[in-house]
Amino acid sequence: MNDRHLPDEFDLIARYFVPLTKGFPGAFALGDDAAVLHPEPGRDIVATADTMVAGIHFFNSDPPAFIARKLLRVNLSDLAAMGARPRYYLLTLALPKDTDAEWVAAFAAGLAEDQEFYGITLAGGDTVATSGPATLTLAALGDVSAGKALRRSGAQKGDRIYVTGTLGDGALGLAVLQGGLAHLSKAHATHLIDRYHLPRPRLAIGRKLIDFAHAAIDISDGLIADLGHVATQSGVGATVEAARLPLSAAVTAALEKDSDLLVTVLGGGDDYELLFTIAQGKEEQLAALAEDEAVKITCIGRIEAMGGVRVLDAQGAEIPLKSTGFRHF
Amino acid sequence: MNDRHLPDEFDLIARYFVPLTKGFPGAFALGDDAAVLHPEPGRDIVATADTMVAGIHFFNSDPPAFIARKLLRVNLSDLAAMGARPRYYLLTLALPKDTDAEWVAAFAAGLAEDQEFYGITLAGGDTVATSGPATLTLAALGDVSAGKALRRSGAQKGDRIYVTGTLGDGALGLAVLQGGLAHLSKAHATHLIDRYHLPRPRLAIGRKLIDFAHAAIDISDGLIADLGHVATQSGVGATVEAARLPLSAAVTAALEKDSDLLVTVLGGGDDYELLFTIAQGKEEQLAALAEDEAVKITCIGRIEAMGGVRVLDAQGAEIPLKSTGFRHF
Repeated sequence: MNDRHLPDEFDLIARYFVPLTKGFPGAFALGDDAAVLHPEPGRDIVATADTMVAGIHFFNSDPPAFIARKLLRVNLSDLAAMGARPRYYLLTLALPKDTDAEWVAAFAAGLAEDQEFYGITLAGGDTVATSGPATLTLAALGDVSAGKALRRSGAQKGDRIYVTGTLGDGALGLAVLQGGLAHLSKAHATHLIDRYHLPRPRLAIGRKLIDFAHAAIDISDGLIADLGHVATQSGVGATVEAARLPLSAAVTAALEKDSDLLVTVLGGGDDYELLFTIAQGKEEQLAALAEDEAVKITCIGRIEAMGGVRVLDAQGAEIPLKSTGFRHF
Repeated sequence: MNDRHLPDEFDLIARYFVPLTKGFPGAFALGDDAAVLHPEPGRDIVATADTMVAGIHFFNSDPPAFIARKLLRVNLSDLAAMGARPRYYLLTLALPKDTDAEWVAAFAAGLAEDQEFYGITLAGGDTVATSGPATLTLAALGDVSAGKALRRSGAQKGDRIYVTGTLGDGALGLAVLQGGLAHLSKAHATHLIDRYHLPRPRLAIGRKLIDFAHAAIDISDGLIADLGHVATQSGVGATVEAARLPLSAAVTAALEKDSDLLVTVLGGGDDYELLFTIAQGKEEQLAALAEDEAVKITCIGRIEAMGGVRVLDAQGAEIPLKSTGFRHF
């Protein structure tokens, strides 16, 4: 139970992590027992946490900056799904003792880049040594107007189901990294890998949805599983029309070669797009929102009174689905 | 990158962790993307996080309820050091795939017992599978009157240095678990092991100190290291009189047999007592506080204008110290 800490841990923290608290006096430059945040009056705090393990959620060979940015972004995606604004994060790293300073420097540089872009600041955390794989946990705190957080519940019969961006890129990016889809062009393969490495949390869209979406979720476990969460929490069913799914050129090319990959697109996860439901008749407002934010927003189906989640093909026949997608806390 | 989740994870969460959110509607029974907290007007949020790794911070053979309670309590000790009231926590567990339901059940039962006692509630988190040792992270959120959080900085020349409880029990408890101190009585050994397994976060004392302590910290890295943090952050020095250190009967017995263990008492850590500094002349108020809370509070030395941390023996000679104690984020 000795050697609980990394060699030079104190120096690494001072050099690479203290600068990430800049601009937030309540972090006390990581020099106190805890951080102190001043909530703004009239706003709720939104809190979420995710863990990523080397060899399971990322490859040891992945660039450390990408690992850091994905760790931050998957949490930001959860904030986006609640309509929250990012504020602060706690970072806890369990790192192998042979982790070198270059790795830590690149990891911190990735955080620095993204926290500047997304407007979030390191508030505190912990670093420890581990005999196992690197295990990285980030807890993100955001805020939202009191009582206005978006929820998974609240979808109503007749609502239209929308998604941001395109689906399946992350899951097929993972397939490429695992040696699959060798027929794809270099450009398509690169696009998919990039989307796997770097989710685009839809924070601006999420914040604007708080005034008119009935329900929202971020697609991390896969479209079917996450739409299933919305349906279950709302006590409704859902129908998706496969022909309406927004697909990138790369995913379209992959599906043309192997239509069975549709299951991966529907269930593979790692999209980190928003799925939300809205009363019909709001198409114009949504089109304006999509244009303002320069993000594609696509209607993919509708909420039904009951019946679980069904996916229909172009002829209206139900596509049989294995239960796919990852379940989490 | 598949098998990112534990077998039956969803069932384990529903069965063992959802009940820990009871009484907190903002956790949404772990059924949404994030938790939503309503801060009380006029109060700051205090946030801290710690990670414990099997084989490093605890033994795989430790009772899971003790592991859970220690994980919670080390975070509560950080809240205590800021004078904060516990509110909510996020729990992220990376567990080996062969973790059985009994382990999870006992772990959750330990949390249930302590969260009831300390008035804190599970708000959210994540569970994932790992190929390595169990890696457990808890982020605790508390609150405190706005602007009143205790800090490590603020100690002033002439302040008296106080500690709660007794020192060295946790570090010598670890020594017993590692096969040392075989000469101790069964009762003494049991006492020390218990103190190692179960810190007593001094929350009530911490909250009452916000009106008159100049600086505070919880002793997790060891008395010398943590007093050193206070001295550094405050820009002062400190003198400790070894003869004044509050010691349990078990630690006294161990020191009688081997006086070299004083280094472990001073530097071993795992005390989770509060150390704080206060202007001289407050002895009566402190005595009343100690009586109210039924916790021993002992003056062990004083803050000096400069000079680092020195420990004097009963004759006033300086005891040479190796640099001991663990450093962390």
